[in-house]
Amino acid sequence: MFELLCKDAATGARRGRLHTPHGTVETPVFMPVGTAGAVKAMPMGALEALDAEIILGNTYHLYLRPGHERIRALGGLHKFNSWRGAILTDSGGYQVFSHRDLRAISEEGVRFASHLDGSRSLFTPENVVDIQRALGADVAMVFDECTPWPASRADAESSMERSMRWAKRCADRWGRAKAEEGDDGRMLFGIVQGGVHPDLRRRSVEALLPLGFDGVAIGGLSVGEPKELMYETVEATAPQLPGDRPRYLMGVGTPEDIVRAVAAGVDMFDCVLPTRNARNGHLFTGAGRVSIKNAAHAGDGGPLDADCPCPVCRRYSRAYLRHLFMSGEHLYAVYATVHNLTFYLDLMRKIRQAIELGKFGDWLR
Amino acid sequence: MFELLCKDAATGARRGRLHTPHGTVETPVFMPVGTAGAVKAMPMGALEALDAEIILGNTYHLYLRPGHERIRALGGLHKFNSWRGAILTDSGGYQVFSHRDLRAISEEGVRFASHLDGSRSLFTPENVVDIQRALGADVAMVFDECTPWPASRADAESSMERSMRWAKRCADRWGRAKAEEGDDGRMLFGIVQGGVHPDLRRRSVEALLPLGFDGVAIGGLSVGEPKELMYETVEATAPQLPGDRPRYLMGVGTPEDIVRAVAAGVDMFDCVLPTRNARNGHLFTGAGRVSIKNAAHAGDGGPLDADCPCPVCRRYSRAYLRHLFMSGEHLYAVYATVHNLTFYLDLMRKIRQAIELGKFGDWLR
Repeated sequence: MFELLCKDAATGARRGRLHTPHGTVETPVFMPVGTAGAVKAMPMGALEALDAEIILGNTYHLYLRPGHERIRALGGLHKFNSWRGAILTDSGGYQVFSHRDLRAISEEGVRFASHLDGSRSLFTPENVVDIQRALGADVAMVFDECTPWPASRADAESSMERSMRWAKRCADRWGRAKAEEGDDGRMLFGIVQGGVHPDLRRRSVEALLPLGFDGVAIGGLSVGEPKELMYETVEATAPQLPGDRPRYLMGVGTPEDIVRAVAAGVDMFDCVLPTRNARNGHLFTGAGRVSIKNAAHAGDGGPLDADCPCPVCRRYSRAYLRHLFMSGEHLYAVYATVHNLTFYLDLMRKIRQAIELGKFGDWLR
Repeated sequence: MFELLCKDAATGARRGRLHTPHGTVETPVFMPVGTAGAVKAMPMGALEALDAEIILGNTYHLYLRPGHERIRALGGLHKFNSWRGAILTDSGGYQVFSHRDLRAISEEGVRFASHLDGSRSLFTPENVVDIQRALGADVAMVFDECTPWPASRADAESSMERSMRWAKRCADRWGRAKAEEGDDGRMLFGIVQGGVHPDLRRRSVEALLPLGFDGVAIGGLSVGEPKELMYETVEATAPQLPGDRPRYLMGVGTPEDIVRAVAAGVDMFDCVLPTRNARNGHLFTGAGRVSIKNAAHAGDGGPLDADCPCPVCRRYSRAYLRHLFMSGEHLYAVYATVHNLTFYLDLMRKIRQAIELGKFGDWLR
């Protein structure tokens, strides 16, 4: 399912292709986050015009609203939101663990209260696999405990160990479902945990390898730890992962983070940064970040980024975008999101091209 | 500038063409409201795909933010918002009069406080003409007093009389500007006032006629009066207006209102109803209005309106639209607005076709 096209000579960067039931995904790839079955403020048509090949869906959010059984009855998430490309669903672990007051963890799974109406649910490794299968994800993730930062070494260790036991239960459930329903090309990814402790990360990788996952993610990062610790952990962990499977760094990050992680051999990324920043007025450009509410833009008739190929930069001025932001217009969020996602997807295109041309090392500098 | 193509035999309906510096507008026409220089939640590309030919801009809002001098310096409203079609600006009268606690009326004009920051301004017939010229409106409106409902006959009379004196001052200012700057095809419309009193409306029409406006609007309706009084007033007033000029019913209305006013001989309409209703969850369909938050739609995989040509009905289900609404997604507003404006513009297309075919009377039934 994963095709490794070439490796960069100077760095760990890889150029690959992930073949999914909903099309091929060129890697390294950035996956826009479609929390509730829609990438926030990004019209589907604009996403298609950008040649996006895969988006993320959040299991936790879709389970609560509109419900996975509802989505299954409506023909699956692809039919529901009319997205023709691939969909990766997270396992909901990150969300249920981040609501600290609303959950209780046991070996069985996590009991939690809905942030919407307080209704109680139990997520287990098994039912989280079932939910993602009901949604029709092309790539499903194991249910894991996202170890918080900071955590004691002992806590990070026992948390990682539980995640590995859960990973085994997910793999078993997935295998049984595949045996019963047939192999339709959908994939299950494992997730490495272990905080910022190299030996725990290594033990986590060793626990996952025998389970035969279709890809492996590095989880539990970008949760508040210092940047350098994150980079060190990624750079130490990525090379330990199977070379013939895709590697996914969850929830990361800034353009700089992504470039650095690609150099370490990571293939897949997701982050709310481009979409959330867009709505908050922070826009990415080749010359750095722009805070659109800055008064300096009020009379600026030039584009946000003259080198950007997006329809917003080709059509509107900084002055107009600032005006829409200051006026609280819905359209501001749409235009800003189109721009920021164009920036991210364009960055990935440049990264892929540089690797293909054997120039990623140069490009990096 | 206005070309009358044909008149319906059975009703007062007219089929015409308004030639503006930014293209031809087929009438009867509905003008989407672009308050702050953008039709709320409606991407410009979607508006163009709908073949919209004219939108409205609000002088009051644009004067306060970003300011007409700012817009003039940036090349005018068309350059600012990148709208290639025609723009009609209202005079701001409706807005300054509706903030009752924030304004003081005199013969000179209206002093008012900004609803944004309390800053004080004076609108006069003269500077309102100047502001609309700075914005670059294809069609400007005279500054008038929108008589509130209910009003005593005496108040309606003195209010109408002041509006007529102001109309004269606007016409003078417009004429001087045209003499100085040349005639570039931009138009100024007068506005009939007089509440629901037939004789006051008649006197208002008589006061406007000698001023040679390029078109005439019926103002001061849809402000709370009973529907039947509105219809009576429109049906009595429209036939008194010059046959060779466009007639514009301001701020109206529902699809039913529009059809009835077309039958009375009205050519132009604007209303926030399709865009505001969209955002509030009220969608127009051939089978009547749909409240999208209704639980009945939660499992409905069918389109909002199977006969609707809009991209939203062709792509998404009621279930998905309801889900976006319930989840508070920005995209809900965008998709709902695209649909409702398609409904309105499609209605106008059907009206124009029925008049052309001499079948408007039948179609009306």
